[in-house]
Amino acid sequence: MDFTQPPTNADVCAAADRIRGQAVHTPLVAITLPNGDRAFLKPENLQRTGSFKFRGAYNRLSQIPADERRFGVVACSSGNHAQGVAEAARILGMSATIVMPADAPAMKIARTRAFGAEVVLYNRATEDRDAIALSICQRTGATFVHPYNDAGVIAGQGTIGLEIVGDLHRMGLKADDVLVCVSGGGLIAGIAAALEEASPATRIHAVEPAEFDDYARSLAAGHPVTNERLSGSLCDALMANSPGSIGFAIGSRRVADGFAVTDEEALRAVAFAAREAKLVAEPGGAVALAALLAGRVETRGRTVVALLSGGNVDDAVLARALTLS
Amino acid sequence: MDFTQPPTNADVCAAADRIRGQAVHTPLVAITLPNGDRAFLKPENLQRTGSFKFRGAYNRLSQIPADERRFGVVACSSGNHAQGVAEAARILGMSATIVMPADAPAMKIARTRAFGAEVVLYNRATEDRDAIALSICQRTGATFVHPYNDAGVIAGQGTIGLEIVGDLHRMGLKADDVLVCVSGGGLIAGIAAALEEASPATRIHAVEPAEFDDYARSLAAGHPVTNERLSGSLCDALMANSPGSIGFAIGSRRVADGFAVTDEEALRAVAFAAREAKLVAEPGGAVALAALLAGRVETRGRTVVALLSGGNVDDAVLARALTLS
Repeated sequence: MDFTQPPTNADVCAAADRIRGQAVHTPLVAITLPNGDRAFLKPENLQRTGSFKFRGAYNRLSQIPADERRFGVVACSSGNHAQGVAEAARILGMSATIVMPADAPAMKIARTRAFGAEVVLYNRATEDRDAIALSICQRTGATFVHPYNDAGVIAGQGTIGLEIVGDLHRMGLKADDVLVCVSGGGLIAGIAAALEEASPATRIHAVEPAEFDDYARSLAAGHPVTNERLSGSLCDALMANSPGSIGFAIGSRRVADGFAVTDEEALRAVAFAAREAKLVAEPGGAVALAALLAGRVETRGRTVVALLSGGNVDDAVLARALTLS
Repeated sequence: MDFTQPPTNADVCAAADRIRGQAVHTPLVAITLPNGDRAFLKPENLQRTGSFKFRGAYNRLSQIPADERRFGVVACSSGNHAQGVAEAARILGMSATIVMPADAPAMKIARTRAFGAEVVLYNRATEDRDAIALSICQRTGATFVHPYNDAGVIAGQGTIGLEIVGDLHRMGLKADDVLVCVSGGGLIAGIAAALEEASPATRIHAVEPAEFDDYARSLAAGHPVTNERLSGSLCDALMANSPGSIGFAIGSRRVADGFAVTDEEALRAVAFAAREAKLVAEPGGAVALAALLAGRVETRGRTVVALLSGGNVDDAVLARALTLS
């Protein structure tokens, strides 16, 4: 497979076969919105390692040729891709080195190490993580696994789209709208690739943190643009500076629109998820729910699914969300 | 159906047909224990109304004859049966009156009202809740729905056992041990009835709060005994004073043994569920997990499932759990 070409529905189906038995087929959880309408969450916080990232990591790593596996893998990540790659590598008997910003949530760094990876910390303001990763790969022969600009990773994330369509079908429903948390756009691209054939009428919406809405602005511009800021959102998982080109080739065709939500809206969504759905979400994983709660898409009489993309939240942030009324 | 006779596996299968499409078929969530072994949670906190109680309530209410439904239903509950009955009544177009202790968690009282029920508060120390409920039934003609001493309720809870057996079967596994949170014993009796035929080799364990271990002591005595205390545990959902006779007729035959866990062990299990499994549990709903974390059953090389029976926890209690290291 050429990992630089956008994946198709067939690539996503092949990924679903590869991850079966390793990844969790997460359920659809029905919720009642404050306006009384029903909607669904796709709780990828219940995914192995606590976020959807395990899907893409396991799909990609399992395609590394046998004779290259002994050199291990290298990834850059603020925390969720880190854990996904670490756990996938552990399962496949590979070593993993993860380049993480020193200001990543402490819990994400600790969990990445607990999954057996070596963590290399860098300073987000002064160092170039890609350069660090490249130098490790050159020295060791390890395979670099990009968090989103890789067709194998994108296809793995897309398995979520197949599960949504299949589970709704068993309930006699079709997805009218799917809201997706977006950072570099690998998740939304994978879902778009899956739905292009499986559910072409579904409207796909990108949701990002305010001031980090490069995806929505890229959609408007017709090509990838960047954010001005590099850090400073509570949504630490959604800090990619610009959409990845491989995924954007699909997303720019298939994603209907994009919304931005504030840190406070994200935090209120974390509280709603805990209180109403009994699910622990991290702020970045809750932005799609936040957009739903804020009424950014019509829910009356429609079948709407919001991704809850991760639950790796520091105790203090969850406790803070629970103080909101 | 005679609701005073212990239900059979066939009654549980009939209940599964009745609740299908209304209750959530909750998934099995794999967790890694501190000792490195894998186990499964059955997260009934994701059930409609936030606890397993909806299953029994809906199964029982849907068997009330059409000409009696207009008189409504009455239940006594500290909160989870309350919500289950309220929501089941709402779906079936019946009115519900719930007699709740004034010291029940504020969130449980508010949620019960939000599901459309009328709440009547009583003083746990000075008033008799059954007498209050009886007087309402006599005045209105409403059907009384006991939280656990009712074969229809027990059969509904037992559907959890069928789901566990079926989901494990699809993974090529059989349950060696199932740990169940116990109050009046309706849940564990239903699971025992389901497993008697579906998985007779499975060992079923009762888990209760320390000082409220009437079920374990009743098993030892061979007949229902009572607790000395009526209140004072963080596990507000598990305060029944004695096992119900209908369920105990099954449980005394089929339950292997019983364990008690402290409030602190329950609270640590709440923290573990949030951090590791990304699930919000209430202390009473987490006692089975607490017993697992404390090593009360052998997990090495065995397939072990712990019920996470509810997630209706006050914000402050969850925040307190998150302060534990």
